[in-house]
Formats: sequence, C-alpha cells, structure tokens
Amino acid sequence: MYAIEYGNDIFLIDCGNKFPDETLLGIDLIVPDITYLLENKERVRALLVTHGHEDHIGGIPYLLKQINVPVYATRFTLGLIELKLQEHKILREAELHEINSMTNLSFGQIKVSFFKVTHSIPDCLGIVIRTPEGNIVHTGDFKFDLTPANDEAAEIHKMAAIGEGGVLVLLSESTNAERPGATPSEQIVGEHVLEAIMKAERKIFLSTFASNVNRIQQVVDASIKANRKLALIGRSMINVVDVAIKRGYLTIPDGMLIDQEEINNADPEKVTILCTGSQGEPMAALARLSTGNYRGVDVLPGDTVILAAGPIPGNEINVTRIVDNLYSLGANVIYSSGKSTAMHVSGHGYQEDLKLLLTLMKPQYFIPIHGELRMLHQHRILAESVGVKEGHTFILNNGEVVDINRGDARQTRKVHAGNTYVDGIGIGDVGDVVLRDRKQLSEDGMLVTILTMSKTKKKLIGTPDTISRGFVYMRESEELLEKIDQVISRTMKEFEKSNKLNWGDVKRQIKKAVGQFVFNETKKKPMILPIIIEV
Amino acid sequence: MYAIEYGNDIFLIDCGNKFPDETLLGIDLIVPDITYLLENKERVRALLVTHGHEDHIGGIPYLLKQINVPVYATRFTLGLIELKLQEHKILREAELHEINSMTNLSFGQIKVSFFKVTHSIPDCLGIVIRTPEGNIVHTGDFKFDLTPANDEAAEIHKMAAIGEGGVLVLLSESTNAERPGATPSEQIVGEHVLEAIMKAERKIFLSTFASNVNRIQQVVDASIKANRKLALIGRSMINVVDVAIKRGYLTIPDGMLIDQEEINNADPEKVTILCTGSQGEPMAALARLSTGNYRGVDVLPGDTVILAAGPIPGNEINVTRIVDNLYSLGANVIYSSGKSTAMHVSGHGYQEDLKLLLTLMKPQYFIPIHGELRMLHQHRILAESVGVKEGHTFILNNGEVVDINRGDARQTRKVHAGNTYVDGIGIGDVGDVVLRDRKQLSEDGMLVTILTMSKTKKKLIGTPDTISRGFVYMRESEELLEKIDQVISRTMKEFEKSNKLNWGDVKRQIKKAVGQFVFNETKKKPMILPIIIEV
Repeated sequence: MYAIEYGNDIFLIDCGNKFPDETLLGIDLIVPDITYLLENKERVRALLVTHGHEDHIGGIPYLLKQINVPVYATRFTLGLIELKLQEHKILREAELHEINSMTNLSFGQIKVSFFKVTHSIPDCLGIVIRTPEGNIVHTGDFKFDLTPANDEAAEIHKMAAIGEGGVLVLLSESTNAERPGATPSEQIVGEHVLEAIMKAERKIFLSTFASNVNRIQQVVDASIKANRKLALIGRSMINVVDVAIKRGYLTIPDGMLIDQEEINNADPEKVTILCTGSQGEPMAALARLSTGNYRGVDVLPGDTVILAAGPIPGNEINVTRIVDNLYSLGANVIYSSGKSTAMHVSGHGYQEDLKLLLTLMKPQYFIPIHGELRMLHQHRILAESVGVKEGHTFILNNGEVVDINRGDARQTRKVHAGNTYVDGIGIGDVGDVVLRDRKQLSEDGMLVTILTMSKTKKKLIGTPDTISRGFVYMRESEELLEKIDQVISRTMKEFEKSNKLNWGDVKRQIKKAVGQFVFNETKKKPMILPIIIEV
Repeated sequence: MYAIEYGNDIFLIDCGNKFPDETLLGIDLIVPDITYLLENKERVRALLVTHGHEDHIGGIPYLLKQINVPVYATRFTLGLIELKLQEHKILREAELHEINSMTNLSFGQIKVSFFKVTHSIPDCLGIVIRTPEGNIVHTGDFKFDLTPANDEAAEIHKMAAIGEGGVLVLLSESTNAERPGATPSEQIVGEHVLEAIMKAERKIFLSTFASNVNRIQQVVDASIKANRKLALIGRSMINVVDVAIKRGYLTIPDGMLIDQEEINNADPEKVTILCTGSQGEPMAALARLSTGNYRGVDVLPGDTVILAAGPIPGNEINVTRIVDNLYSLGANVIYSSGKSTAMHVSGHGYQEDLKLLLTLMKPQYFIPIHGELRMLHQHRILAESVGVKEGHTFILNNGEVVDINRGDARQTRKVHAGNTYVDGIGIGDVGDVVLRDRKQLSEDGMLVTILTMSKTKKKLIGTPDTISRGFVYMRESEELLEKIDQVISRTMKEFEKSNKLNWGDVKRQIKKAVGQFVFNETKKKPMILPIIIEV
C-alpha cells in the first residue's frame, strides 16, 4: 500500500495482503498496519486500485472496516473486491466507484488519470497523480506484451505522452528486475496448452491462477477445439470465473460448462477440469486430488495433469510434492521442470520491459517498489542505465517517506507502518510474545507441572503431577516424567527449608531446575509451565 | 541406504540422513529405520560408502551404534566419517577400512570393486558387486566433467569395460534427470570466482559447501593471485578444510591462513573469508553475518559477498532473505539470480550425463535412485531412450524389494524400512502423536484450565483458572479468559446436577465446551488441557 500526500489530502494506492512465511506460526494473513492513516483519518480521500490480485486488494476489507474511504477500481477488479467485501459482510456500506483508463478524477488541486497496462489478470491500470509540485506515476504490476492473449494491450502511446508531459516521481514494480531479457508473450502458453490438450487421451486436469482469465480463455478455446466440456473445481475458480463471465471478460459457449457431479459420467476424452491449487496450497483442489482426497473426482492412470503456472518463490516444495503424488497415481504430469517455461509466462516485466517503461516515463526521481530488497537494488541499476541520475533513486522500507519540495526530493521522516497479523478473526491480537511461545511449543512441546500447596503450612501436598504434550510420548516416557517429579520435589524441599515462600520465585526456580534436567537428559527444550494450587 | 542381499550375505551401500521439512516440527534429523537389518544383524557383512556427503554418511553413527558393521570408504570420505564418529564418541569401536578405486574386496562368493566418478566432493566411487547371478552397479552421485577443477576425472574406460562385462542391474542417481543438456564444468566456477575476487575492492566473504574442496581450492588459487590472505568462519568449514589439508586434497601455502581474530587487523583489500551457510541455514555463519550478529566480524559497506552455491530446493527463501539483508548492510552481493549459474555448477549429472552412463553400462535392469518420484520417472524415460527395455525399470519406495532369479528380475516383497526421527539425543522417541500435538500447539497455542475439586463433595472449589500460551496475549485478553472460566463453571454445574462425576467425562466435556466457545469467538483452535486437582 502506498500513500501519496499533498497538503490536506491523502491518496492510497492498493491495499493488499501478504501470506505468512514459516516463522509466523498459525498466522493466516498479513495486512498493512494503518496506524498512521487512522491518525489522519479525515484526510484520506480515496483508495485507487491498480488491479485485482490478492497482494493489491486482500487488505481492503480490513482497511474499510476502520476507514470507510471511497474505492476506485476497474470493472473486473471491482468484481473481485465485491466478493471480498461480501465475505466480510461490509459490501453494503462500501463506496465503490467503477473507473477505466479514460477516467479523470479531480480532488481539489489534485487530478488523477490512468493508463492501461498488461499483466496476468484483466483490466489493469497504471495511475498518474498530478499535483502542483509535479506528476507522480505508479505503474501497478505490468509487463509489455505486444501480442497479448486477449485485447488487453498496454497504452504505450499514452505512456509516452505522460513521459513527455514530465514525470517528477515514478514508482515502478520490481518483481522480475533480476531477470534479463523481455517477458515472453502469453500467446506462447496458449500454443503449448492447445498442443497438450489435443494430445491428451483421457481426462485433463489443468491448474492455473483463477484470476488469470486470459489464460483460462485459452484453455476454453483449446477445449472447444478438442471437443471437450469444461468443469470447474475449487471455490475461488468457481467464484472468479463467475465474475469474469458476468462482467464480460470470459466467453464460454452455452452448454460447455458441466457440474462437478457430471465429471464421472462424461467420457474421459471429452472433459477438461480447471482446478485451483497450482501453488501447492495444501487445502486446494489440486493437492487433494493428488492424494486421492477430493470427494467425487479422481485422478486415474492415463489422465493428464497440466500445471499452467510457475511456482511463486517459497512454494516450490509444495508444488513438487504434488507432482510426485500425481505420478504415483499414474497420471501424465506436465509441469515447469528445469528451465522450461512452456506452460507459464510471468505477468511481471523482465529487465527489458522495466527499462522500456523507465525510458517512456523519463522520471526525475525513481522509487522501485513491489519486490524484495535485492530486486529493488537491481531495478535501481536498470534505472541508472537508462538515464535516472545517481542519487535520484529511493529504496524505501515500510513507513519511510520521501518529501518533495520545489522539485527537490529527499528521504526524510518515517511514519508508523508495518505488518498486522490476522489469525482467525483476530486482527493484531497475535504479537511477538505469542509467536515466540508458538515457536517453542512447535519445536519441543511443553511440560505442565502442577504443585498443590498447603495454604497454611506452605508445604507441598502429595507429589507433583507433570503432563507433557508435543514433548515425548507420555506412555513411553514414564520413567523420565517420574524423575522430573523428583527434581521438583527436591527443589521444593530447598524452598521449604528457607521458610520464605514466594510463588514467583518458586515458579522461576522450578522452571530452571526442570529445564536444566530435561535438557541434560534429552537435549530438548520444552516450554515448562509450573502451576501452583493453594488449598 | 541400499541393501544388496545374496544368500547369507547383506551388503549396505551408503547410510545418509535427510533433513526434516517444515511439517516435522522440532525434528533435527531423519535417519534410516533399520528394523529389517536388526532382524538380520548377523548377515550384514559391510557398509560400502560412495562419498562423504551428509545424505550418504550422516546416518552412519546411528547405524553403527546398533550394528557395528565394517565400513569401507576412500581416504577423504573416511576423514569425514571419523569426524562424525568422534562427535558421537564411537570412533574407537568402529572398524574402518580405507579403499580406493583399485581396491578389490572378496566376501565368499561376492566380489566388490570400484570405479572413480566425478562429483562435488573429492574421492567419489561407483561400486560393482559381482554375484553368481550377475553384476550389480551402483553409481553413487556423479556427473561427467572432462575438465574437472582438480585431478578427479571419472574412469570412463573402466566404466566401459564394466558395461562390456555385463551389468544385470544398474542403480543410478536421478537428481538432475529433469534438466536437459550436460552439466557444465566446475572450471567455469573457477573462472568466475577469479574474476569476482580480482574486481573486489574491500573484504570478500565467499560462502560455499565446506565439502566442495575443489571449489575451495579454486578460491584459494584466486586469492593467491589477488594477494589476499584467507580466513575460515564456521565450524564445518574449519573441520572439513582441516581434513582436506591433512589428507592431501587441498593445498594452502604456509602463512596464507589467518585466524578469525586477525580479520579486523588485516587490510580489507587483502583478505578473503570463506564461510559456511550458503544454504541460508539460520544458525550458520553467513546468516549471522547478514544480520550483524556474528561476533567479531562485520560485513561493511563496500565489502563483496559471493554465494558460490546454488540453493537446494526448499532453501530458496532462506537464501534470498540473506541476500536482502546483505544488501541492506551495503554489501556488493554476487549470487545466482534468475538463470545465471555463474558462481555454481551442479555436482549431479544432467540428462546427457545420465544417458552417457546408461549407454556405457548397458544394464539389463534399471533402478533409478536418489531423487523425488518425478525425477525417477524422468530417469526411466531417459533409460528407455538409450535402450533399456520397457518394463525393465523399477521405481521403488522405501522397503520395496527387487528379487532376481536366473536373470529374471521382479518387484516382489516389502521389508520394514522408512524414516526414524532424531530429536535432541532421542532417536525414534518422537512419533506421530507428538508431532500432531506440536502442529496444533504451533498454530494456535494452548489453554490450560485448572479445576480444583473437593474430593468429598465432588464440587468445584472456587473459580477455575485458565492459562494460555501461544494463543492470545494474556494481558490483553482478560475478558476472553474470564468468559472461558464462566463456560467451565457452567459445564461443571451440569455435571454436579447429574451427580455422576467421572473425571474422564468431565475433561472431555470441558474440552468440547471450551473448544467450541473459543472457536466461535476467535476462529482459533488451541489445544485445551483441563487439569483436575482433587483436594
């Protein structure tokens, strides 16, 4: 999420979510920390949305619940945003405005216009914000594709005109700043999909991003040629295809779509099944199909499974695990192995695409966005190679601010920004302490030891009782648990002698003694939780 | 680990470890389950080791502790095995035999001989086991490199002779069966390392696999040319370099090696630092250097960091996180981005290498080994393309057996085999129940609720007490915890009415009621652990 401020106005661009990495145990989603915006609530004028991918719209429900700002997005993007708002039961309150690349918006001194870009989802925009200080351009996500699969050609002439008009600051995405060359055209995927579909002899399962409607159209077209019906599996595939059809982005002939229940009755040579899960998500359709756990549909020997999507970094292992499982079901699996990109091309511009955009825009200042630090650095190098002056590129962390004054830009302040964790329906209720506990619990489990103490005599009554979970299997470790109880009894005796019983000290001492004993015996470090009951 | 049985004799080939994936919470290591071997202990004649990588020797200490079988390995491989046995304090009892590619071993009717192969560690062997039924060949890990960095050329003529002599079964590794072409030569890395080292202006940190001694020799040679001293960081780097020098596999001129403590006193232009952690291991030197947490050595602006290793699948995210951190320290980072392989070549043969080996060996039967299922399938396709008959390839899971009788091979029985988990010093003491608990604890933490009950009146004394860890932060969730206590009190009232108190039922009912309540309120599913104290 980016915020552009001028005088009394704040404009937001995109509001996505991130997915947690493996260190954020149990976290479902990461959305922007909007503390700064809440502090300046009355100044936020609009949320401008470039396109409908999760990392650009996934945070919108969480934002609107706290700041009900008007949202501006294209027809298809709005369709996806509405799905989300419905799910969060806030669609009715939301103020949504449909725009297109011809729209001009005016907020006092600030004028906003747009230009079409090509990406891996329909209806994407770049944004131009005209301020009295100068023009600011935000590319959204983009690549150049001179032969796109549908009519989603980027408006190159408009971009050239924007550049001629003068760009003070360019914010451009950096996902593929490390990849040399130019992004291949989406048409290549269409050709390979057609070839694979014509060759397949039994059922075809094809998995791709539900939002890649142009690719889905190519699968539809190929299936028509192969005289195959089409079935959809997976909630997001069904929802997004529905939005795409209703809003006119996808054309499927009448009678071609069949229900999931009809798959088994259809001739295996006559059906293509589009399914979710191309990123290896464990609960999505493809993962469940690959282990024979999708109710009502089976991958059988001789079926063809096409993974028409590249794994996003971090998902490689999950994806390849699915490929292995599909092989063991006897399927013919077509996936991106080694260096082949046959069934997938990226939606993000490679180095030559990025340089072309920079050349068209000729910005005075440059802020590479949307990428890991190493990609931002590479993007800076690319920008300097096509004329951006040294020192005119700003590589920013969350919350860092570039201030512009009379054409002079400087990185100055920092505002409160960062990540908010969503866990279940809790937003921000899980912080570092809880995550640290989860980490310890996940690695070595826990030991709960209960001590019943006499309130009057300040003495242990009976023997302590120790319960373990996630540490070692209790039934097989009775001896160890008994020894732990002895350690506790011994520790308590020391305290009873000293005659000064402070429960805080007792707990600390037991934690230490038991922790040390357990580590010596097992080299494990479970969480130790002494509980004292006074009776 | 592979076992070859003939009559009363069992021969083992390699005994490695695997590293746990993210689902095996807290597990340190996976070693082979040797149940079958323990049942046939007196028949196990020898462990033959192809080379010294962890996935080929890491399980040896765990094996020898249970079956003290004689171990046969080359001089360098033995050096690495000895390090391990020393750590496990069983070096003295072990029976170790040094072999080389000329060695011939005889165990009754069975004769064993060897051939040199090239890989990414010195002193690698393939193995030929001659039985009265026919000859069995195991390749170990290999590639072909006609211009290797040192004198480790594979014995191609010997391989040809072995093939001419007749190979009944070939077991060949499959790691790169998905990659077209031939593996590039290690010399390429040497050239690029030299170029990078000559260009660097301040300190150089270079990270690679400690066991890739030939690559380290190239770094040494380049540093000599650049007039730089060499320092080593990281325990395994220091240990393995020590073995390599002492056994004659690595030549470092006198006075070139400096201690870690001397790095800061040296002229930054005059020092190369070799460090561990090229796979992004969080506790290794490179990760700690990248966050400024390596005591006594700092990566400073203008320093060069070279990652001369490709990330093993699954480690990409950890590696790129380090690259990002190094950038933010101001270092010049040279790593394998996009499709460049400048600083690394694989030690495993690509498709053309695999086909060459298959062509030389001309096996009657083929067992592709050492790879994920999809790679084994690809390897089968390669084998069939160079003449292995359809149906003569066996793709095996752990424990599956191929029986050969008068030249006729069939996949038949299954013996007990699989994974044993090592956690701390416990071997096999963590099983599915414990792992399931750890998973639940890691995702949503736990709630411990303590109920003090009157033994005589069978009634709750006072209010229940609930403690949470890893669920929500307790101080900020007092209201929720109070409500949970109310749910428990209410549940207990029901029981008290019914007058039949069975602690098992009480616990089950509380788990259910609290679980449901918590899920409705938070959509989280913590582990709920009711504890009843009778007083």
